[in-house]
Amino acid sequence: MKIYDSLNIKDAIKKIGLKSGMTISFHHHLREGDEVLLKIMSEIKALGIKDLTLSCTSLMNVHEKIVDYIENGTIKAIHTTGLKGKLAKYVVHKGLKNPVIFRSHGGRARALQEKNINVDVAFISASAVDTFGNATGSIGKNSFGSLGYGIWEAQNADKVIIVTDNIIKNNVLPHISIPQHKVDEVIYVDSIGDISKIKTGSLIPKFSYSNFIIAKKTAEIIIKLAGCLSDKSLQLGSGSISIQVMKFISEHLKRKNEKLKFVLGGISDFILETFEEGLIQTIFDVQSFSPTCSNIIGKNSSYIEIDNSWYANPKTNCLVNYLDFSVLSAIEIDMQWNVNSLISSDYEIIGAIGGHQDVSDGSNITIITAPLVRGRIPIIVDKVKAVTTPGKNIDILVTDFGIAVNPIRKDITNNLSSLDMKIFTIEDLYKKAKELVGIPEKPKLTNKVVGVIENRSGEIVDYIYRKQE
Amino acid sequence: MKIYDSLNIKDAIKKIGLKSGMTISFHHHLREGDEVLLKIMSEIKALGIKDLTLSCTSLMNVHEKIVDYIENGTIKAIHTTGLKGKLAKYVVHKGLKNPVIFRSHGGRARALQEKNINVDVAFISASAVDTFGNATGSIGKNSFGSLGYGIWEAQNADKVIIVTDNIIKNNVLPHISIPQHKVDEVIYVDSIGDISKIKTGSLIPKFSYSNFIIAKKTAEIIIKLAGCLSDKSLQLGSGSISIQVMKFISEHLKRKNEKLKFVLGGISDFILETFEEGLIQTIFDVQSFSPTCSNIIGKNSSYIEIDNSWYANPKTNCLVNYLDFSVLSAIEIDMQWNVNSLISSDYEIIGAIGGHQDVSDGSNITIITAPLVRGRIPIIVDKVKAVTTPGKNIDILVTDFGIAVNPIRKDITNNLSSLDMKIFTIEDLYKKAKELVGIPEKPKLTNKVVGVIENRSGEIVDYIYRKQE
Repeated sequence: MKIYDSLNIKDAIKKIGLKSGMTISFHHHLREGDEVLLKIMSEIKALGIKDLTLSCTSLMNVHEKIVDYIENGTIKAIHTTGLKGKLAKYVVHKGLKNPVIFRSHGGRARALQEKNINVDVAFISASAVDTFGNATGSIGKNSFGSLGYGIWEAQNADKVIIVTDNIIKNNVLPHISIPQHKVDEVIYVDSIGDISKIKTGSLIPKFSYSNFIIAKKTAEIIIKLAGCLSDKSLQLGSGSISIQVMKFISEHLKRKNEKLKFVLGGISDFILETFEEGLIQTIFDVQSFSPTCSNIIGKNSSYIEIDNSWYANPKTNCLVNYLDFSVLSAIEIDMQWNVNSLISSDYEIIGAIGGHQDVSDGSNITIITAPLVRGRIPIIVDKVKAVTTPGKNIDILVTDFGIAVNPIRKDITNNLSSLDMKIFTIEDLYKKAKELVGIPEKPKLTNKVVGVIENRSGEIVDYIYRKQE
Repeated sequence: MKIYDSLNIKDAIKKIGLKSGMTISFHHHLREGDEVLLKIMSEIKALGIKDLTLSCTSLMNVHEKIVDYIENGTIKAIHTTGLKGKLAKYVVHKGLKNPVIFRSHGGRARALQEKNINVDVAFISASAVDTFGNATGSIGKNSFGSLGYGIWEAQNADKVIIVTDNIIKNNVLPHISIPQHKVDEVIYVDSIGDISKIKTGSLIPKFSYSNFIIAKKTAEIIIKLAGCLSDKSLQLGSGSISIQVMKFISEHLKRKNEKLKFVLGGISDFILETFEEGLIQTIFDVQSFSPTCSNIIGKNSSYIEIDNSWYANPKTNCLVNYLDFSVLSAIEIDMQWNVNSLISSDYEIIGAIGGHQDVSDGSNITIITAPLVRGRIPIIVDKVKAVTTPGKNIDILVTDFGIAVNPIRKDITNNLSSLDMKIFTIEDLYKKAKELVGIPEKPKLTNKVVGVIENRSGEIVDYIYRKQE
């Protein structure tokens, strides 16, 4: 077998043998700029292929037309780590025949490896492909950075189709993310998407005084607990709190002439900048939150493109297990420290599990940062609407009104005692939030299950129910 | 799971759960310098584990003590691409309970992928490992170069143990061949072997006038058939003929200001030197025939470390399929153009299948180079002692007494007609050899099968029989 030429979408689908009832996969590195999924779905629909399971690393607002493919029978089931917009509303207000299965990035890596998910055909967007069929995401006009999720799809799917708008002739790619022997066909399209839309939604930081306070406290806690930061590792989220945590820690590193051992995760501009200042020894990038990361992938051996198994597969010796600190967000956190990173106060799916389950499980110290109230909504609740991350993996909560430490981590409470920072119980903070905004009315639900939340090992930890209209 | 510390051999074997009856694998990148296989076998024996299948990428003279482990019941079966010395004699003169299964490098890649071979535990020698468990063969005092075969073992074995004499603390490897998430345990040993012994046996060129003649003709044929060499690719063997072919081609490339598109395969010093002269665009290295290759792996993006699936897995879009020319050797070639690269005239196993089956199948033009007679032994025979590569994949035979072209390749005969080079039939050359040295007596065999030769797709193409004493 040899890839002689790229094909158009229709010919590739026919040649690969895609049939009704099969499972297809897509990655979400292009985020809100992705054009590949809908281009492929349109041709699949035209070919009359039905009842597909759409197994994705994540789905975005840009994919709202999936609703039509559910309605017309092209798609019968969905696996994802999160949903947004119109599609999210469709799931909660109506639901598919089968509940949507929500998994973490590490959980997906494990499920693929253990064949809980059998992907018949993976469609993998690449910003460059050479004439051998080698692929990458970090070269070309639409470079989106790490091809992390795609790499693991290519290793596990029965058939692999690379979709690209950039075929490099007469040369081998200078950086290969997916080697040719994992690739069955190459599709050429005019455009895989718009990389300027990668940084939208949750990736656009919203600065506020309360976020500043939270970031300052978080950085102080990390610096105190770390002692020396030089042999320590860190994963941060993407929002304004994380940016400011990184800034405080950078200043400390410079002052002390220290260097973080590694930073892991989704990599935003501000992490890349800190790396380029020489304050981080190694970066492991499973997902670039900025196309700028493309400039360094494959060029600096201390900046390593990793797949989501390497990142977080719970059945392997993965990187999250080596994390000293992680800073994560939450939509809600409850009295048992359980986190909900998926469902809003009014019971809409607005988030994703992402790496939350994996990072909090692997990291030695997991810090949740959140304002005590968002708008008129309290973040601390008696019981989360859905458990996405179990409370036993959450160690510290930092809010603008004070911090709390999970009672199972007495070691942390002791270590923090010398800081000039009062430690509350989570119950104290819950009461404080209640005083401020009261308890919102609980949304009314039916007993129809529209979503299933798995933990990273594949057990069901919670359900999502259809909303009562 | 996290690799906290390296283990000694015994503890690692116990922890990984190796049991009697299982299949274990080793790679042969250290060739005659390997010390890992026997160190591991010694501890396995001491633990009383029996009836193992030893599934190796190849076995060398240095491994002769395997005979004892067969005799005492520790090893019951062997998979390999070749055998040497005392172990080879044991197989042909006595045999194991089960016949030895001989596969090509691509055939092994396929067999692992398709689970024809299920490796329970792969022991993978590495010249450096970091504290995360990432491994490579191209860093450290015992750098042996490409970890090609090991990479594919790590992707397919149930459990993976890295064996190293060099653990890098406080830093991530600057070049990672096998990522940590494929690694279950790390064993530390004093020494993995002696890299000065990589270049022994068939890797030490023997120059002669007849080899010079053969090389000159081969280069002329390639240059004639290629037209321009700049978009052409090549795989060469490791001996003196290949060195001289490369030299003639290099001179031509310099004269014409051309550059080979890629060179693939086992990479010897003389190929590396040609690359460093700027005469080869890309090198794909599945196995370094010189430790010097370590100096460039991971440092030059046009020198690519590949695994044996990427190299030659027949079920994939692998590199051999993109070869324009290959120059291979043979112990015997017969009237049907079948090649034997395994068994000597007196019916001893002295060679290996290696990549021969794969390269000749994938390459557009496959040239066999051999002297018409070796010592008093004719190279051309009526019927090879064992078919290792089918005749349909062989295109040209170049001997010191003349060349022959496989009649199925009329296109080649036509293209060569303008060269001042007489084309013989293979029957002509057979007669010439017979005139020179007569026909040697055929060795006497029993009907006990001691070896099975598979083609790269997994079908049996021939058998090896126990020799009559």
